[in-house]
Amino acid sequence: MPAPAYARLFRAGTPAATPRFAGLPKYNFVGGHNDPTRIPVDALADAAAAALRREGSGLALYNMGQGPLGHDGLRDMVADKLRRHRGVDPCTRDDVLITSGSLQGLDLVNDLLLEAGDTVIIEELSYGGAISRVKKRGVTVVPVALDAEGMRMDSLADALDALKARGVTPKYIYTIPTIQNPTGSILPLDRRHRMLELARAHGVPVFEDECYADLIWAGSGTAPPALYALDPAQVIHIGSFSKTLAPALRAAYAVAPQEVLWRLVSLKTDGGTGAVEQMMVAEYFSKHFDSHVAALSGVLEEKLRTMVEAVEREFGAAAELFIPKGGIFLWIRLPDGVDVAKLVQPAARAGIQFNPGPEWACDPASAKSQLRLCFALPSKEEIREGVAAFARVCFEETGIPAQSANVRHGAG
Amino acid sequence: MPAPAYARLFRAGTPAATPRFAGLPKYNFVGGHNDPTRIPVDALADAAAAALRREGSGLALYNMGQGPLGHDGLRDMVADKLRRHRGVDPCTRDDVLITSGSLQGLDLVNDLLLEAGDTVIIEELSYGGAISRVKKRGVTVVPVALDAEGMRMDSLADALDALKARGVTPKYIYTIPTIQNPTGSILPLDRRHRMLELARAHGVPVFEDECYADLIWAGSGTAPPALYALDPAQVIHIGSFSKTLAPALRAAYAVAPQEVLWRLVSLKTDGGTGAVEQMMVAEYFSKHFDSHVAALSGVLEEKLRTMVEAVEREFGAAAELFIPKGGIFLWIRLPDGVDVAKLVQPAARAGIQFNPGPEWACDPASAKSQLRLCFALPSKEEIREGVAAFARVCFEETGIPAQSANVRHGAG
Repeated sequence: MPAPAYARLFRAGTPAATPRFAGLPKYNFVGGHNDPTRIPVDALADAAAAALRREGSGLALYNMGQGPLGHDGLRDMVADKLRRHRGVDPCTRDDVLITSGSLQGLDLVNDLLLEAGDTVIIEELSYGGAISRVKKRGVTVVPVALDAEGMRMDSLADALDALKARGVTPKYIYTIPTIQNPTGSILPLDRRHRMLELARAHGVPVFEDECYADLIWAGSGTAPPALYALDPAQVIHIGSFSKTLAPALRAAYAVAPQEVLWRLVSLKTDGGTGAVEQMMVAEYFSKHFDSHVAALSGVLEEKLRTMVEAVEREFGAAAELFIPKGGIFLWIRLPDGVDVAKLVQPAARAGIQFNPGPEWACDPASAKSQLRLCFALPSKEEIREGVAAFARVCFEETGIPAQSANVRHGAG
Repeated sequence: MPAPAYARLFRAGTPAATPRFAGLPKYNFVGGHNDPTRIPVDALADAAAAALRREGSGLALYNMGQGPLGHDGLRDMVADKLRRHRGVDPCTRDDVLITSGSLQGLDLVNDLLLEAGDTVIIEELSYGGAISRVKKRGVTVVPVALDAEGMRMDSLADALDALKARGVTPKYIYTIPTIQNPTGSILPLDRRHRMLELARAHGVPVFEDECYADLIWAGSGTAPPALYALDPAQVIHIGSFSKTLAPALRAAYAVAPQEVLWRLVSLKTDGGTGAVEQMMVAEYFSKHFDSHVAALSGVLEEKLRTMVEAVEREFGAAAELFIPKGGIFLWIRLPDGVDVAKLVQPAARAGIQFNPGPEWACDPASAKSQLRLCFALPSKEEIREGVAAFARVCFEETGIPAQSANVRHGAG
């Protein structure tokens, strides 16, 4: 790609060109893709058509003439879901801002709160897109330790106290309490109360990301209420339909106190979020949310089981697994000697893509030997084959795992 | 709206909260709304349903697995349209990036090129959203004079020379050459060649915004080719389906040299543009673009005529009109004594909303007595009533127009 003559005018620090798209890998374990067989194609076609026939003429107006918070029907649906599933009560359409994906929610909240030199608190392992966005703004990230139940409150208290001693008020505590990304934990109720207590005491808002909270295994029990439900004045809450319906839709939401919500609107200068997707999701999920999500969670749990079996078979004791309570990914820790960054290229040559741990860590070096595998997109067969292929690549590059599926490597 | 306790943490300079949405005005002459009766509701319902049934399972993947430039079918449709209507040949899907509205195109190009302290060249009257975005970044705007045929090339040459004398290379020349916003002119071919000659000589890219270029009155003749068609290496071109189909859809595009296009992709960190809208527009417009746009233009031209008659009837010689060659708005100059900013509130009380000229001008004071009326949304009856009501407000506030529809004001 030759650069144009005016390339010297590009802003300093603008990122390099993305490599031209070369198609998807055979074994695709990255990102937030979902199961193509679980897209309710006919029902969505019916929903889109019905909604368009009923209210399509409203497309002639920005935001369908319904104002900048978004489609009334979708906001009703979100409010209903938050009341019934996340303990947010009362909750009405007036509390809900529809966003173009939860990434836009992240951007808007960051626009409202952050400038270079600021500090935020994030779980030590967290969503890569949240960490990278904050760092790109020149904001300092203070990590808080996780355990099997999510954010550790002693670590949060220590972090807040240490910052206070230095005269620093962090701009927010970013947390994924319900199906933590990437470890898949659910934060218990007592920790939720404690987090809010600390947030109030230090005057810091909690930024709650519940992208995966609707996808919980039947056996995982009921998740505690959202943090936003426990103290709406202290929390900015975002959620999405990317994981429960489809990521190629850009339909997500933010819920926050009125003053915050309408400030986010002032920062949302995009001419509105696409209305057809909003009306389609409203039409379909107003009727089918619970049944759709229950069926999808069942399929995902089966795929998780397939992946866990495959990883245990191929990696044996070399892999420490964080079994998630829901969601679409499995977090894995390999022995300290393994540098997963060095596996990216060889894996790609074998048709395998995965999320290297360092991109999901506040301190990248701390997750040098960790990685995330998404199990939602590939079939069970592809999961088995892909994990086996990945184990071969890993052995060839690092000598680990020494044995796969009862076959000792390097013995032949 | 009480502010939350953490409001003191808001970034300095963050805009105030948007006032709560209070519904649309009775006489809505603002923005880029379109004619609700011209939304092809049934055809869009059929198109959305057909596309979803055929390719809906692809929604399980970000960007439907088709890569970050957007939906293949929509990019084919855009390339075909640019080849047939805008003289861009060759043009293929590989040249096209789908964006979430052309506002996102503006943002991405600004992200690529601009930082505080930079300078850009913009037509003295131009799209308010383009001017405000640039100013918000701390970028200096140098205006270029317009006449009835669009940007004046002597003024552009002077502006470039004056900047060069000061050692300043502007980051781009932003132009709306085909149905200029807000004056409705079409830039002749010789000026297009001259603009590109100047751009090349000064090493400055042209940023061409063709949001309205597909809506030209039958009697206005064929527009010259897009600037991008004449020199693709020198031009970044954006266009949209907001005006030709519906603004509540967020489907637009950018066309540029490969290196620029893939840098814009790097800056487009939104997880993709909504796929359902892309597939629906592709499905409908692949078959019906020419007929839809021809019919819509006919309806819009009739509404323009209604508005021109109404303004002439109500304002008489007090209003100087810029009759557009296409598009959806009428630009009006009132006598110098009128300060349109002072009409906003009284007009709103009378149920009227319009775009004050200062928001559409690089130098707001220069357009103190000018305003823009969009005629696409209201019915002909509403246009007549609304313009009459606006003339009354204007008279009450300024004494102008002294006479409306043969009635001398203030006589009773």
